[in-house]
Amino acid sequence: MSFNTFGKIFRFTTWGESHGPAIGCVIDGCPPNIPISENEIQKDMDRRRPGQSKFTTQRKESDKIVILSGVFEGKSTGTPISIIIYNEDKRSRDYETIKNKFRPGHADFTYFKKYGIRDYRGGGRQSARETACRVAAGAVARIVLSKLIGSKFNIIGAVTQLGLMSCDRNNWNNTEIRKNPFFCPDKKSIKLWEQYLLSVRKAGSSCGAIIELRASGIPVGLGAPIYSKLDTDIAAALMSINAVKGVNIGAGMSSAFLSGEENSDEMRVKSGKLNFKSNNAGGILGGISSGQDVIASFSVKPTSSILSSRETIDRKGKNTNISVKGRHDPCVGIRAVPIGEAMLACVILDHFLMNRAQCG
Amino acid sequence: MSFNTFGKIFRFTTWGESHGPAIGCVIDGCPPNIPISENEIQKDMDRRRPGQSKFTTQRKESDKIVILSGVFEGKSTGTPISIIIYNEDKRSRDYETIKNKFRPGHADFTYFKKYGIRDYRGGGRQSARETACRVAAGAVARIVLSKLIGSKFNIIGAVTQLGLMSCDRNNWNNTEIRKNPFFCPDKKSIKLWEQYLLSVRKAGSSCGAIIELRASGIPVGLGAPIYSKLDTDIAAALMSINAVKGVNIGAGMSSAFLSGEENSDEMRVKSGKLNFKSNNAGGILGGISSGQDVIASFSVKPTSSILSSRETIDRKGKNTNISVKGRHDPCVGIRAVPIGEAMLACVILDHFLMNRAQCG
Amino acid sequence: MSFNTFGKIFRFTTWGESHGPAIGCVIDGCPPNIPISENEIQKDMDRRRPGQSKFTTQRKESDKIVILSGVFEGKSTGTPISIIIYNEDKRSRDYETIKNKFRPGHADFTYFKKYGIRDYRGGGRQSARETACRVAAGAVARIVLSKLIGSKFNIIGAVTQLGLMSCDRNNWNNTEIRKNPFFCPDKKSIKLWEQYLLSVRKAGSSCGAIIELRASGIPVGLGAPIYSKLDTDIAAALMSINAVKGVNIGAGMSSAFLSGEENSDEMRVKSGKLNFKSNNAGGILGGISSGQDVIASFSVKPTSSILSSRETIDRKGKNTNISVKGRHDPCVGIRAVPIGEAMLACVILDHFLMNRAQCG
Amino acid sequence: MSFNTFGKIFRFTTWGESHGPAIGCVIDGCPPNIPISENEIQKDMDRRRPGQSKFTTQRKESDKIVILSGVFEGKSTGTPISIIIYNEDKRSRDYETIKNKFRPGHADFTYFKKYGIRDYRGGGRQSARETACRVAAGAVARIVLSKLIGSKFNIIGAVTQLGLMSCDRNNWNNTEIRKNPFFCPDKKSIKLWEQYLLSVRKAGSSCGAIIELRASGIPVGLGAPIYSKLDTDIAAALMSINAVKGVNIGAGMSSAFLSGEENSDEMRVKSGKLNFKSNNAGGILGGISSGQDVIASFSVKPTSSILSSRETIDRKGKNTNISVKGRHDPCVGIRAVPIGEAMLACVILDHFLMNRAQCG
Repeated sequence: MSFNTFGKIFRFTTWGESHGPAIGCVIDGCPPNIPISENEIQKDMDRRRPGQSKFTTQRKESDKIVILSGVFEGKSTGTPISIIIYNEDKRSRDYETIKNKFRPGHADFTYFKKYGIRDYRGGGRQSARETACRVAAGAVARIVLSKLIGSKFNIIGAVTQLGLMSCDRNNWNNTEIRKNPFFCPDKKSIKLWEQYLLSVRKAGSSCGAIIELRASGIPVGLGAPIYSKLDTDIAAALMSINAVKGVNIGAGMSSAFLSGEENSDEMRVKSGKLNFKSNNAGGILGGISSGQDVIASFSVKPTSSILSSRETIDRKGKNTNISVKGRHDPCVGIRAVPIGEAMLACVILDHFLMNRAQCG
Repeated sequence: MSFNTFGKIFRFTTWGESHGPAIGCVIDGCPPNIPISENEIQKDMDRRRPGQSKFTTQRKESDKIVILSGVFEGKSTGTPISIIIYNEDKRSRDYETIKNKFRPGHADFTYFKKYGIRDYRGGGRQSARETACRVAAGAVARIVLSKLIGSKFNIIGAVTQLGLMSCDRNNWNNTEIRKNPFFCPDKKSIKLWEQYLLSVRKAGSSCGAIIELRASGIPVGLGAPIYSKLDTDIAAALMSINAVKGVNIGAGMSSAFLSGEENSDEMRVKSGKLNFKSNNAGGILGGISSGQDVIASFSVKPTSSILSSRETIDRKGKNTNISVKGRHDPCVGIRAVPIGEAMLACVILDHFLMNRAQCG
Repeated sequence: MSFNTFGKIFRFTTWGESHGPAIGCVIDGCPPNIPISENEIQKDMDRRRPGQSKFTTQRKESDKIVILSGVFEGKSTGTPISIIIYNEDKRSRDYETIKNKFRPGHADFTYFKKYGIRDYRGGGRQSARETACRVAAGAVARIVLSKLIGSKFNIIGAVTQLGLMSCDRNNWNNTEIRKNPFFCPDKKSIKLWEQYLLSVRKAGSSCGAIIELRASGIPVGLGAPIYSKLDTDIAAALMSINAVKGVNIGAGMSSAFLSGEENSDEMRVKSGKLNFKSNNAGGILGGISSGQDVIASFSVKPTSSILSSRETIDRKGKNTNISVKGRHDPCVGIRAVPIGEAMLACVILDHFLMNRAQCG
Repeated sequence: MSFNTFGKIFRFTTWGESHGPAIGCVIDGCPPNIPISENEIQKDMDRRRPGQSKFTTQRKESDKIVILSGVFEGKSTGTPISIIIYNEDKRSRDYETIKNKFRPGHADFTYFKKYGIRDYRGGGRQSARETACRVAAGAVARIVLSKLIGSKFNIIGAVTQLGLMSCDRNNWNNTEIRKNPFFCPDKKSIKLWEQYLLSVRKAGSSCGAIIELRASGIPVGLGAPIYSKLDTDIAAALMSINAVKGVNIGAGMSSAFLSGEENSDEMRVKSGKLNFKSNNAGGILGGISSGQDVIASFSVKPTSSILSSRETIDRKGKNTNISVKGRHDPCVGIRAVPIGEAMLACVILDHFLMNRAQCG
């Protein structure tokens, strides 16, 4: 795991800028003989794709992926799978105004300071566009896991908090999530969320979100203590997503408020099957999966690209103000759902393979 | 970063079980010619050491470190620094009762399922005793950073939430933290915390905690996007600590509730010096340090080693109950403060060196 | 260094099959602000390109590289540089005859046994075509090193043994190397080599070669003992090239025949400048560059694609015979010169950056 | 593989200086539930141990290993195995004379130039004493491989060239190797070798050696192209050993002299069993094991610690002369046999686990 590569055995490397000719990823360490098709990957891509509702950026990208290597006669060969996505709707002129100014809360300032140069067009490498590559890699991971684990394996994510709007997590419904533009798991909340987000958008403002991920069918034993714990790598995977500022496993930050009695997930065997009475651990004990659902959540901060004028500095270090008029998501957190799912799938597959390496 | 090794250039590998002859770490990639002494490292060790107040486990360990290599005539040579800590107070008989039972909420179950074997004495490798090695590595990192960056560099951590007890973070006082047994930054809260924790201990129960870390003097430019972002590696570092379930950077999970206007940390130059008007980003933008204080916090769940009887299963898969009478911390979160500081120091040094590699 | 990625800080990942739509590489960790152009890289590509003389395969590939990312306004940005090379002259029908037979001495058999599937067209991933990507990465490394070290830096390779034909290494002439189709450093040998190789080609046979690499201007101090010694990584880099079976550093295998007196490269300072009286060490002592020229050589075995009928087995494990009629190089070792140079450049740059990381 | 750590999944990290209190290694990624005992490891240690014949250094070291972690009730637990070896016979005064002078052909000069500091006592970290740790790690690897593969697995090494003295490799006899102090595989050569080496020792000189390693019972399919080929990692493993200057796989450098017809190892199936008609490939095709014996050889240069006065410089850059009178091996290559075996065992186990990860 270094620079632009993620993973240990199942590894992917992403490349590309928002307004360059293309972006892409190279997936390495994929088990051989797994049926992989562009169509299957495209399904996941389409869930992240911009311009699908009025609640996401109006940039028009088909995000059509092309497999350039590693798949032969419809199956993975065990060699690197190179996937390319050509950039289509590049309106670079939109960014001329911010060429020399740093958007506060954005990486403009730090990229420039670190490298002494930056591709400012659409945020260049900092752009959330990079996450399309993660979704492609995650789609492959998901296909492989379905093959290795079988149909009981599933990963699904949902937005459980949209800015100031909450929802009832007890109403979690997987089918519902796929139906609404917010990936909201609670049907009752959708109407309110719609009104809320429209008002945010009209105000030229933005809001944050919390996304929850649930992985089921995960075998016991995944995770390599001490520094490759399953939760360690999930935390890294999710925190690496643009705009993410917090990661919880199971009860997460709230575990601080529990007593030892409340927190311990008691165990009972019934008819030969192990049941846990709760899942505060989020399916991970000592960094190793317990066989319960793996539960993780993460927060996405509101994008800093807003209409209101904000105080900032320019490249020469002079005070100035900035107001961003480009096409942006009022809540980038929504599109983070398939990204979070993808990253979780990659981590789980990586640990599946690592566990197989050491423990057979 | 793999298995028991942490870091990319400044790397440390830990080994050892709670009740084996010793534990230790090997630190690799340390810059040469840095004055390193056992005494200096010992200071940090002593802050984590058990048995220092009635609020931590009564296990008596001097945690005396010995440097076995890598330091010559008082200075680092650039070769591996091997540090050993002999285990002293090993009452292995305490653990006979739990030899065949899995403590719910503990890693007993998952270690056994993954490896098919486990050293049950004191938790073996899962024991928080492993964290002593992190503190040793972190002490070295801190010494190196002080040398490389100078006196403006500092890392300090504090407990900001002790179970149900909060404190006023506006009263944060570095001197106060070092004085009380809770690493509480707010003098006014100490009395209440003391009463609270005594009651938890008397009840044979346990509670969680939230620890906040603040690193100052961090140069702009540390962090290697996309998958070695500074916050990515901090999240991994903190989540890898025993019992940690959540990690926040800056506003963290709360950033979901902020508007774009609130969240963007506006910038202003005054007399040639850059000032940010807030620090919701926790000093990290796009995965790269901004020059602001790096702020991270993490939650520690309550230990599952409690007096109350809990439902669980045994090695043979039969239902049983367990009640843990060994010596334990009512709040393991307290001793997590120096551990968190150590991990943060290691990550920052690692990124300092990585940035120097790529950007000179 | 794992699977299809080479390097630690300056790292490249290659992908692609001989007869897929394209091949490519992603270069990560490149220092920012270095002028990089497609033209400059293309020069190195052209030296490896097939079809340039009657002594190499007649496959027509322009090997035209396209930079897809990581370079902005002519300079590296510090983000991944993605380079793509489209495959043009793919005569897949040529390979139908060997679809179900394993060429002896080729990787056909082992790829199939390992993965249970293989892209047999042109050798798929095993094809020497992959090495074009190494040359692209090496070209970037060379450009960066020239910038970091200055004009005294140079890497040049030559064929010093062509099958049974030797040359006089004392006649080594850098200019001559660039002029003849064999990369032969000794003008006097060229005529004989030409006759020899023509006879090999006419016989439908093939021969091996030994390539020697010389890097000058390398600063003292590169190499990270114990397991990232400079020579360790050079050995890995060169042995990873297709068909390479042996690697020497300095006196190499011959060092076994030297006495301690002969082998030790004595040192003398003259007018403040250090001189070594010999260079049996090949510029590397204890895994660290000494400031002398770094000298490495490697052998390339004769390609197994020959006209003569050879005994082998087919996919079903039945005995059969094979004779390969496709377009092949009578001596693949010739085109290994720019590949070896490229790998050496990558290793040296990687160690330059690693040394900068640890030692400043 | 970075700095002082070797391997990808089965990884070991070594530490320690020749004249510090101890040296040691930490083995990580070992499969669990493998019977591991100090006695079994000690057997391999004893084969490398100095002071066993008049042909090796007279330094007296019992090289007694102690396992500090990772083994519980006689079996590996899957957690790090820490092994320590205390240094006993440290005559640091021997080295006072060379404190300020660089031995030509030694790493004294480069360590000092790289790090600006060095532990000169006995060569500090550069000492061949480090290789004891490799033998310990290799012993563990061998035990694991014997368990995973079964009794057909074997690795044995021999000295096939002792300075100017050759031997007849056709007389290779595994039993003989274990009987003579030279690890010579050919009984007929021993008498001559003895006379030769005695004369070298008397002259205060030293000579080099070539060691050949043979691993049998290796399953087909080990090795991960392109940059983790089995031969790539073997080359790195062997070249990382002190004083090694060349590595061959199979026919090695000599493959340059073969024709395509000679070089291709033809295949024939007989009674359902695959036979290769030769083994020029050394059991590796395209970086993947073919099921044949894996054959590798490497050269060890003569030690530069000789009685004759040699020209060199001192720490201040002044010309001086040096003559080394400490206890040294007239041929360090002899003791390299168990080291080479150990490194080969580690590489093969690592690839066994990696192959299991990706290909199941």
